[in-house]
Amino acid sequence: MRPRTGLPVVGMVGAGQLARMTHQAAISLGQSLRVLAAAADDAAALVAHDVVVGDHTRYADLAGFAAGCDVLTFDHEHVPAEHLRALVAAGHTVHPAPHALRHAQDKRVMRERLADLGLPVPRWAPVADAEDVAEFAEKAGWPVVAKAVRGGYDGRGVWVLGGTDEARPVLAAGIPLLVEELVPWRRELAAVVARSPYGQGAAWPVVETVQRDGICVEVLAPAPGLDPEVGEHAQWLALTVAEALDVVGVLAVELFETGAGLLVNELAMRPHNSGHWTIEGSRTSQFEQHLRAVLDYPLGVTTMTAPAVAMANVLAVGEPVPQGRPGAVGLDERVHHCGARWPAVKVHLYGKVPRPGRKIGHVTAVGEDPGAVRASASAAAAYLAGLAGEPG
Amino acid sequence: MRPRTGLPVVGMVGAGQLARMTHQAAISLGQSLRVLAAAADDAAALVAHDVVVGDHTRYADLAGFAAGCDVLTFDHEHVPAEHLRALVAAGHTVHPAPHALRHAQDKRVMRERLADLGLPVPRWAPVADAEDVAEFAEKAGWPVVAKAVRGGYDGRGVWVLGGTDEARPVLAAGIPLLVEELVPWRRELAAVVARSPYGQGAAWPVVETVQRDGICVEVLAPAPGLDPEVGEHAQWLALTVAEALDVVGVLAVELFETGAGLLVNELAMRPHNSGHWTIEGSRTSQFEQHLRAVLDYPLGVTTMTAPAVAMANVLAVGEPVPQGRPGAVGLDERVHHCGARWPAVKVHLYGKVPRPGRKIGHVTAVGEDPGAVRASASAAAAYLAGLAGEPG
Repeated sequence: MRPRTGLPVVGMVGAGQLARMTHQAAISLGQSLRVLAAAADDAAALVAHDVVVGDHTRYADLAGFAAGCDVLTFDHEHVPAEHLRALVAAGHTVHPAPHALRHAQDKRVMRERLADLGLPVPRWAPVADAEDVAEFAEKAGWPVVAKAVRGGYDGRGVWVLGGTDEARPVLAAGIPLLVEELVPWRRELAAVVARSPYGQGAAWPVVETVQRDGICVEVLAPAPGLDPEVGEHAQWLALTVAEALDVVGVLAVELFETGAGLLVNELAMRPHNSGHWTIEGSRTSQFEQHLRAVLDYPLGVTTMTAPAVAMANVLAVGEPVPQGRPGAVGLDERVHHCGARWPAVKVHLYGKVPRPGRKIGHVTAVGEDPGAVRASASAAAAYLAGLAGEPG
Repeated sequence: MRPRTGLPVVGMVGAGQLARMTHQAAISLGQSLRVLAAAADDAAALVAHDVVVGDHTRYADLAGFAAGCDVLTFDHEHVPAEHLRALVAAGHTVHPAPHALRHAQDKRVMRERLADLGLPVPRWAPVADAEDVAEFAEKAGWPVVAKAVRGGYDGRGVWVLGGTDEARPVLAAGIPLLVEELVPWRRELAAVVARSPYGQGAAWPVVETVQRDGICVEVLAPAPGLDPEVGEHAQWLALTVAEALDVVGVLAVELFETGAGLLVNELAMRPHNSGHWTIEGSRTSQFEQHLRAVLDYPLGVTTMTAPAVAMANVLAVGEPVPQGRPGAVGLDERVHHCGARWPAVKVHLYGKVPRPGRKIGHVTAVGEDPGAVRASASAAAAYLAGLAGEPG
């Protein structure tokens, strides 16, 4: 049914936390995000009104979902490219378009394209067998980093290999792989931008992303102590990639900061963990901006709301309501204590049942002092995760 | 079904824009607001996942709705008091409780109670006939203001009477009325606070509310040029009312600022139009705070995010997608233009079909200069409303 307001319907394939937070932003724009959920208890499916449960790898499910939408966009990169092309051929508006999204779906395609554009990427090579890995390592040196060409995220699909013996079991899985040099980076940065079909671009300040075991645990905005020229260069890189690849929507460019400059590590063409801080930390959140972009609305201003913002992910260590463990505290009680101890920290929970290692939410602290906001966000997230017995 | 996270379920009776924006806040807290909607296209019913359509004046509908909720709260004051008491008797947690909410449902009960507490209210009297009105006017002077004891809002249920002749048609409607002096106020203020069952209180800065034809059109935070002592007194008044009446949740106290001090005009025990600015303008929005309060979570900090915030209501003047009128611009196109002209103004649309005079949304501007934020919010709201042909 068409909204009687005449406002457009955006459909998002995938119903994880990115869709959940995009729905929050859609509500302000007078809309209600339509989501294609894999399961009825997906993070966004729990809170959106217009939920279709279906399989994003089946064309019939995608086409049925698209029928009621003015524009289709994505919570993840896992829709098969041929289905995306078929949706476009059937007349649907798809943002980012398949010819753009393939660079976020396939690391080999992305690296080839960025190299063609003359943009800085780590040394890399596609590999089919242990000999290919050894040949690359001869030039780049051991260890090398092997990456699944498709589907990896949050540390999955990434292996650090010390020698050919370690490469064999990874190669044995039979998935397309590439290898790259282990970059001696100082830290990881992310440049998050948005681009509209009209070609308008907007960039947020460049952030530092702090990883643990390959998983982002903290994001610091702006990246502390970043040379302003390096920051501008990172924004230029991201806007250049957005333009060259015809990205529509939010584009997150993960970067390595090295002694010799910046290297592009990964791309994501959707709201991204490195932009969650924008909900409170910027006048326009990445979720609102993604909607504005895919609707070809003018983009919102990206001014920060305070000098320092820190985001910390809540990576669960316990069960939701532990029973029989003296002193164990369920999630609801942790939210209570967190609110008392850190009344200025903003909590975002995704409706997910805590399981060890699962990203069940994030918290954001906004203020004047980078050290203070980082300390409170980090402590609040650890407490919500169940790491601490008492709010510190 | 209980959420598997163990987090509580809040049910809100009523599904207007207040419930819609409360749902946005609930999502961040890991929840999904359950709403009792009068119709499937109510503002919140369009965006919430857990929607029950029913009649808030029927006890069976209320009891069925309450069955799945940990706490019940309200988008409006229209639930009959006897039903609220029956829900409490049946073991449901209801915030604000009926003994508090009656003061927001019945202006006579409210004025009697505030007078008993020694708090400043306009001179007033209950009236049954024209003689009562004339008797009051002899003391207070003409004109007097007649108000429906129950159910009035946004200028409805309020009449300015120049003499007994004008009183007769109003009295003829047969609804319970009171009259009060026409207060020679300088301006109207609102003190918005929250109180938890534990007794914690939190106050936002006092705001100026600008009315036109009895309808709030703008809210300026903080109230420009307000004497700090008057501001603190207004906050004290609101916190005192919250405590004395045992309010749980957000309490908005509408005030007249006069040459002789403050007078309490009206109370609302729910998120209120005078607090919409807090979504962007305060570290904790009134919607999140209302949820924290009714859940007995610790309250969030009420610090402003910038020195000056202005909210302007979008009161529609046109139809959503005018057809055949040369130059007429539909709502979607107005949102486009608004985003281009005022990229820093935040838009909140309620999913309502524009009809002349209908409050279909609001906009908020945040910045350093009170005059500048007011000008941009006001102009953007007027443009979205359809008042202007071109974005100015």
